[in-house]
Amino acid sequence: MESAEAIAYSSTANLGPGFDILAIAHNAFHDRITASISDTNIEGGIRLHGMAEPLDPLRNTAGLAAYRLLKEMDIRDSIDLHIMKGVPAGYGLGSSGASAAASVAAIDRLFNLGLSPEKKVEFSMAGEVASSGTPHADNVAASIYGGFVVVESISPIKVRRIRISEEFSFITIIPDFRIHDKTRIARRLVPQAVSIQKYVENARYIAELTSGLITGDRELVRSGMNDAIVEEARKPLFPFYDAVKRIMIRNNAAGACLSGAGPSIMGVVDRDTNVRGIRKEAAEYLKSIGIESNIVISNLAGGTSSD
Amino acid sequence: MESAEAIAYSSTANLGPGFDILAIAHNAFHDRITASISDTNIEGGIRLHGMAEPLDPLRNTAGLAAYRLLKEMDIRDSIDLHIMKGVPAGYGLGSSGASAAASVAAIDRLFNLGLSPEKKVEFSMAGEVASSGTPHADNVAASIYGGFVVVESISPIKVRRIRISEEFSFITIIPDFRIHDKTRIARRLVPQAVSIQKYVENARYIAELTSGLITGDRELVRSGMNDAIVEEARKPLFPFYDAVKRIMIRNNAAGACLSGAGPSIMGVVDRDTNVRGIRKEAAEYLKSIGIESNIVISNLAGGTSSD
Repeated sequence: MESAEAIAYSSTANLGPGFDILAIAHNAFHDRITASISDTNIEGGIRLHGMAEPLDPLRNTAGLAAYRLLKEMDIRDSIDLHIMKGVPAGYGLGSSGASAAASVAAIDRLFNLGLSPEKKVEFSMAGEVASSGTPHADNVAASIYGGFVVVESISPIKVRRIRISEEFSFITIIPDFRIHDKTRIARRLVPQAVSIQKYVENARYIAELTSGLITGDRELVRSGMNDAIVEEARKPLFPFYDAVKRIMIRNNAAGACLSGAGPSIMGVVDRDTNVRGIRKEAAEYLKSIGIESNIVISNLAGGTSSD
Repeated sequence: MESAEAIAYSSTANLGPGFDILAIAHNAFHDRITASISDTNIEGGIRLHGMAEPLDPLRNTAGLAAYRLLKEMDIRDSIDLHIMKGVPAGYGLGSSGASAAASVAAIDRLFNLGLSPEKKVEFSMAGEVASSGTPHADNVAASIYGGFVVVESISPIKVRRIRISEEFSFITIIPDFRIHDKTRIARRLVPQAVSIQKYVENARYIAELTSGLITGDRELVRSGMNDAIVEEARKPLFPFYDAVKRIMIRNNAAGACLSGAGPSIMGVVDRDTNVRGIRKEAAEYLKSIGIESNIVISNLAGGTSSD
């Protein structure tokens, strides 16, 4: 095969209390990457084309993940990666993770490598390390495995996709509010220590959220999609967060959380949610404080191998 | 009705990472309490009979819970409580919680009060406050609701019983190893603050354990029934814990944990577990270090209203 293509979906990490361990993939957005063997010799082995930004493969997670894969698998061919960038970058929607995941999946197909999903996560993480300075697998795990994932270990990589209730879908509010170097700043705000009370509080949220998502119990999701530790510390960066979450809850979303490191806010919705109310009120509120927004409804997405 | 009876089962709180929030009720042991209206006037309103120890109602959780209930419900009758104490006290098996739960449930029936389970937990907790110095609802919640419970809030009381897989049953190793004032000492060992790394580690355990118990996935239970915070801090009190847990895991228990504040150790078992191997090796090991033990197999138990 001279070229191969892969899709990877956007994702929401943390889901409230699950810092670095929980994430879901949603079909709100996706990246599509086509990998092909170049007929000319490329210095370094990788060339990026299309909507990738930046196009320097050493500053792009798709490129970094590809480098890591080629090096570890000892592939000497030169590769062209054509990137159809669908996931907006800088909004907490797992954009860098989706690019890395699509890149690894496309190259895996091109050379018929049969990489395990764990290996795909490992290679894809190379890009995440570069973009945040800290190894975290949550977004790439969601994009590669699809669905709702628990990152059980990052060294070695161990991820579990857990089936959740089909009752739930998602609404994502994407405020046009970008903070330069957000991912690093957001990481820096994470407290180094937490009180035992906050531990117990957050542990309870995790138990409620996990069991609520699995069993389809919206009240448990409502109670559990909260965070006294990481979201609490990051909230000052996003002064509109509390108000938008209140709008979602008032319109009977099952739950709402900061998507990853923000600024996007994701709501878990079901048939009892007034989705139109959320759309209208959230957009109006954000506009009233001078912030434009996009609002996207989505469902749980598959992984890179199930598209 | 002149007399009424209730049963409450033993329980295991914490289940590894779930300090103060997770517990299960098991039919390893139970207390049975018969409440009857006394034909003589009892000073203070409550008299204990039978195997209660101590028989002073102000120093017994069955008595303390009964006082709280009578006072709040403005009941003026004098009550005799006959206690058939089945749950051994001081072994981390929710003995004080079971006595309080059975007492409240029996009086509820006697007067046909129709108390909600939340109210029953609230009254029963009066005894737990007295015995540990800290309000915690995990054991009483398990004894009253039955099954696997998440304590969502203690003020006001909010508890959720969550259905778990029927694949699992339990083995409890009860070492004859008692520490004077254990509950208070064990509470004092709980660290006041934890690092963010330990938070993330334990949050992951909670997500794994909860989803594993619900879905019947023994590997998730295996990964999740661990605790880097509370169990870790209490382990020095129980020098045999690590070895007994290793024996359980080697014989393919799905998971193993300290039962509440110990010294008992509970294993989650299924058809793949060598239960006879655990019985034999754990008893032999404990004997080799001079500790006699009892070992009990049990299943998930119902609550006080489903017996």
